[in-house]
Amino acid sequence: MNKNINLLEDESIDDLQLDNLLLIQKKQGFRFGVDAVLLSNFANVKNRHRVIDLCTGTGIVPFLIYGKYKPKEIIGVEIQEDMVEMANRSSKYNEVENIVKFINADLKDTGFLKSLGTFDVLTVNPPYKLNNSGILNPDDKLAIARHEILCNLEDVIRASRRLLKDNGRMYIVHRPERLIDIFELMRKYKIEPKRVQMIHPKVNKAPNIVLVEGQRDGGAYLKWEAPLYVYNEDGTYTKEINKIYGREE
Amino acid sequence: MNKNINLLEDESIDDLQLDNLLLIQKKQGFRFGVDAVLLSNFANVKNRHRVIDLCTGTGIVPFLIYGKYKPKEIIGVEIQEDMVEMANRSSKYNEVENIVKFINADLKDTGFLKSLGTFDVLTVNPPYKLNNSGILNPDDKLAIARHEILCNLEDVIRASRRLLKDNGRMYIVHRPERLIDIFELMRKYKIEPKRVQMIHPKVNKAPNIVLVEGQRDGGAYLKWEAPLYVYNEDGTYTKEINKIYGREE
Repeated sequence: MNKNINLLEDESIDDLQLDNLLLIQKKQGFRFGVDAVLLSNFANVKNRHRVIDLCTGTGIVPFLIYGKYKPKEIIGVEIQEDMVEMANRSSKYNEVENIVKFINADLKDTGFLKSLGTFDVLTVNPPYKLNNSGILNPDDKLAIARHEILCNLEDVIRASRRLLKDNGRMYIVHRPERLIDIFELMRKYKIEPKRVQMIHPKVNKAPNIVLVEGQRDGGAYLKWEAPLYVYNEDGTYTKEINKIYGREE
Repeated sequence: MNKNINLLEDESIDDLQLDNLLLIQKKQGFRFGVDAVLLSNFANVKNRHRVIDLCTGTGIVPFLIYGKYKPKEIIGVEIQEDMVEMANRSSKYNEVENIVKFINADLKDTGFLKSLGTFDVLTVNPPYKLNNSGILNPDDKLAIARHEILCNLEDVIRASRRLLKDNGRMYIVHRPERLIDIFELMRKYKIEPKRVQMIHPKVNKAPNIVLVEGQRDGGAYLKWEAPLYVYNEDGTYTKEINKIYGREE
């Protein structure tokens, strides 16, 4: 581990509890949550894969994927420059800067997308909320991460089409309320939804997170996974969630 | 109850355990299952509503809806003539022939659809399976009920568009594997999916039945219901299923 990386005063460094990886995050601001953990667990990544993560933020998904699957290359793309600088410092800190790289770019920039080549696997944890309130501050970093201000779902799926190899797979985490839009846009850009998993806070609650796997030019057959429940009735984490977090008893 | 209704030799008459309603079914052949019960439970039907049920078969969904909600009129449409004759005998048997009526027609016949007027609520339990095996016998009544031989999902949703009032609601039961197609076709015919419920055999199993509510020209917002589990771990019915079947302890 490279200890010669400086932290800014408003930053913390957190242990991912996976392969000794650390992650720099802002003390106040967007900090990674269960969605990133579920997404990296849902993705099928092989050693030989080139992987790209869109809307990568702090780089949490690339680091978790690196820790779990050790693919040969992972690129994270993020539109907020200071986040990219921070993510690249995490990469240096972890001494994986030759494998896990972050680029500051706009995924709507097709020239940029072309320059990257194509990927076996694409992951994305995009902003969830429609930008229809009209009261959001476009300089607000949290708002950019959460609302479709600088990119919307269609931008993400259009970029995914361009970035995936033939038969390459994309993995997206989102809110179940948007599942119609996800299916519709995937089909529009010829990424066939192949697999869905719903995440429920508890057994008798409606799902609040959805994971979708799509395949570029894949054939039509949708598989539903068994659901995942985050909490037991007594408020403790379920066995399945503890397993995903690597906290096996 | 009108006891002067003859049963054919290959028919049985079954108690729906609801409002003393009975249903004539073939001893061998398509007999109603949990799907029809879940569909009639999922639908929101008021006293003042005109209701139509497509692919009605034995008429099970209209009788369950009549028993639960007592709407002013329910029409069942079925392409197999002998099923319609049987369903109308069930209606006479139950002495509800002025309210629950069955018509032998093809839902692809737009002239026929027009003649019916419009409805507040439409229900449908269509054939689930794609007709892509090529080995099915088109005279096989069970095959017609189960496979998209005489009508497919698009025929059903196109007919629903024509039959619903402005803002009228459709309720469909289907297999989760077809949910992309359901969403895509509903949007194509401007019936917005508004509510989804997944039915799982058990808590830790993938869903095997999906219920979808759509609204003609409705606004885009999709609500996910808490899931429903059919069996407990020990193989007994769950409390929720017993409640839907009217078997409350």
